[in-house]
Amino acid sequence: MRLSKLFTKTNKNLLKDESSISGQLLTRAGYIDKLSAGIYTFLPLGWRVVRKIENIIRQEMEAIDGQEIFMPVLHPKKNWETTKRWEIEEMFKLKNRFNQEYGLGWTHEEIITPLVKKFVSSYKDLPVYVFQIQTKMRDEARAKSGVLRTKEFIMKDLYSFHSSNEDLDNYYERVKNAYFQIFNRCGIGEKTFLTLASGGTFSKYSHEFQTLTKNGEDIIYICQKCGLAINKEIKNEHLSCPECGNKKFKEEKSIEVGNIFKLGTKYSQPFNFKFTDKDGSKKLVIMGCYGIGIPRLMGAIIENNFDEKGIIWPELVAPYQIYLISLETKKDNQIRKISEEIYQNLKKKGIEILYDDREEKTAGEKFTDADLIGIPWRMVISEKTIKRKSVEIKRRNEKDIFLIPIQDIEKFFIEKLKKINKFFKTTY
Amino acid sequence: MRLSKLFTKTNKNLLKDESSISGQLLTRAGYIDKLSAGIYTFLPLGWRVVRKIENIIRQEMEAIDGQEIFMPVLHPKKNWETTKRWEIEEMFKLKNRFNQEYGLGWTHEEIITPLVKKFVSSYKDLPVYVFQIQTKMRDEARAKSGVLRTKEFIMKDLYSFHSSNEDLDNYYERVKNAYFQIFNRCGIGEKTFLTLASGGTFSKYSHEFQTLTKNGEDIIYICQKCGLAINKEIKNEHLSCPECGNKKFKEEKSIEVGNIFKLGTKYSQPFNFKFTDKDGSKKLVIMGCYGIGIPRLMGAIIENNFDEKGIIWPELVAPYQIYLISLETKKDNQIRKISEEIYQNLKKKGIEILYDDREEKTAGEKFTDADLIGIPWRMVISEKTIKRKSVEIKRRNEKDIFLIPIQDIEKFFIEKLKKINKFFKTTY
Repeated sequence: MRLSKLFTKTNKNLLKDESSISGQLLTRAGYIDKLSAGIYTFLPLGWRVVRKIENIIRQEMEAIDGQEIFMPVLHPKKNWETTKRWEIEEMFKLKNRFNQEYGLGWTHEEIITPLVKKFVSSYKDLPVYVFQIQTKMRDEARAKSGVLRTKEFIMKDLYSFHSSNEDLDNYYERVKNAYFQIFNRCGIGEKTFLTLASGGTFSKYSHEFQTLTKNGEDIIYICQKCGLAINKEIKNEHLSCPECGNKKFKEEKSIEVGNIFKLGTKYSQPFNFKFTDKDGSKKLVIMGCYGIGIPRLMGAIIENNFDEKGIIWPELVAPYQIYLISLETKKDNQIRKISEEIYQNLKKKGIEILYDDREEKTAGEKFTDADLIGIPWRMVISEKTIKRKSVEIKRRNEKDIFLIPIQDIEKFFIEKLKKINKFFKTTY
Repeated sequence: MRLSKLFTKTNKNLLKDESSISGQLLTRAGYIDKLSAGIYTFLPLGWRVVRKIENIIRQEMEAIDGQEIFMPVLHPKKNWETTKRWEIEEMFKLKNRFNQEYGLGWTHEEIITPLVKKFVSSYKDLPVYVFQIQTKMRDEARAKSGVLRTKEFIMKDLYSFHSSNEDLDNYYERVKNAYFQIFNRCGIGEKTFLTLASGGTFSKYSHEFQTLTKNGEDIIYICQKCGLAINKEIKNEHLSCPECGNKKFKEEKSIEVGNIFKLGTKYSQPFNFKFTDKDGSKKLVIMGCYGIGIPRLMGAIIENNFDEKGIIWPELVAPYQIYLISLETKKDNQIRKISEEIYQNLKKKGIEILYDDREEKTAGEKFTDADLIGIPWRMVISEKTIKRKSVEIKRRNEKDIFLIPIQDIEKFFIEKLKKINKFFKTTY
């Protein structure tokens, strides 16, 4: 992509109405645009990041046998009356011109349960694992932290259906592993902790995945022996770690990036979703649900990957791998020509490259934008580098600058990308 | 994918509440599920088709320099008051618990215009081409034809911004070509006609892309010389073809699968979106907009590609390329083993294969499902074929059955798929 063509622009000024670091940086670097409180547009760079995160999640969901579907946002009132959740105040509700009432989906148990019921009658039809990546709507009172807490957001929600609690327990562990893999690939694995939390009305406990951030809205206590965390809301119930018995915890601020629930029969009950078991008896289906809010995950990645100059994207979620700066001078057209060649060549090889070919920008402005936008590798082509038949390379999160011969660039990046992909390869 | 794992099931009964052929077939074959009138879930097979269509469209939009973004569904009332379109009755409206009013987007001019305005000030910033693939909501009175006319649907909408009418005219022609390419790749190119239609309030004419179907809700008149069609609503104004002057037309029933509009300054005016031109004068930005409803396109594909047994998917939008039927007998485990090997092997090579490995189904039931689901190639492995070290191949839309040696299967399909991809290759 040529920056001269990209229709968005960076903005160097601090924004008054964005309280979070990620909201500030994403807006200033041209990833998102606020339409209204808690409602954002994803601009070309931001949408590339969202789609990369979506694809990581999709791969991991398929690796644990999830089948992808796409459920509506508009929900008939009767589905929510069945579970007595129509009155929940965070749900947007509307009446149309024909006096029909709809709620806008903030979760999809009320839709997925009767849907899967249509296809399941026997234990032989179970288990079922279904997920979607779809927009959720929530009448959020505290929409103020960029994409961390919004009224409209893309969410991956997975639902599982089982014939026994043991089967749910087994699958629950597989989902835990898939979630850790997702956070690893998104570059926040080391900062993300499985956290015991309140289970709501239907189960004593649930699990959250909490990512440490200085500005987090949650507080967790991390066991210093096994690494399990406990959410502050239930810390009183756990003086020692329920996993290893240890009593030393570290208090940290954090933000929830995922949660997993054993729902049991909470939703199969009101929808009377039963199956015939091996012995011929009719039993309620056992369910689990597992969510990840994608813009929030995007925000959490930045809250852990930035410096005073801007964003520092982890490789696998960066919108592009290379930010190419061509420092041509007016008298020397040669630099421009070589830059064009390198750009075209890397693009052809499938390497994602953002080419700062803007003629009206100074070198300083280009370096500032490169840091703000936060692409993992910066490549500079100048009179100095061309004299040595090389380009200058710098990683966004490192200080070292080094030269690579022009003839080796392609190999260098293909090797780097191979290594990253290999490291995170999921076995299907 | 193994059919024994796929959580959906086919349904051989005709449905009372689906008046369209595509709605019938998509529901019975397990592609979609109706939640409520005009509101559908896309099931795993259906979602694969939607994503294939999306990717074809995405490629063609990128080929004409479109930049992809993602705008919200929730729109603040004030954006729609600016253009005096808040009162349009097809727009769903809601008031939240804090008394804020929102409309649900049925189009996005009211969002994209002020958004692009933020980044454009000079003629140097133009043109801008932006598209999204996003859910639209419309309080549809006539929701009754499956996915052809719904209250919630995924749409590709492209918006272009220009400094002159000439520039808009040039881009408009590029979009026309991209649209024909999309309909070609979706297998309905020959049945789809560029159609002169009413332009609404802001332009005398617009263009629709109309696909012939026996049950279409529109009527068009196709020029028998140049192939331009004219929508019935404006046929009186055109006794001869405005393109070639010919007077012979053929009347056909059809359905609209896309439309393109020259908006002019209709939206830049109310948002006061001006740019500074070369001569220093301030001028209103000239706009165009270009839409394709994706579920409707999916429905239109089927309305043109079915027989009494079921769907006949065109190759590039089929959810899978091969439907593999293993006719194992209880006494012979060999057939099952070979089928498994072929399945695993083709899957590894990236060939999309749906494996009917269901043990409880008869051969007849498997053949019936294969035809209903409509995968382009059917592959049968039986005692008879194994004796000849072969598999039996049949195209869904042809009668011939032929044998291919097991060792040649991979090559056969890879060649076929290469040919298709090459034929439709878009130059970037």
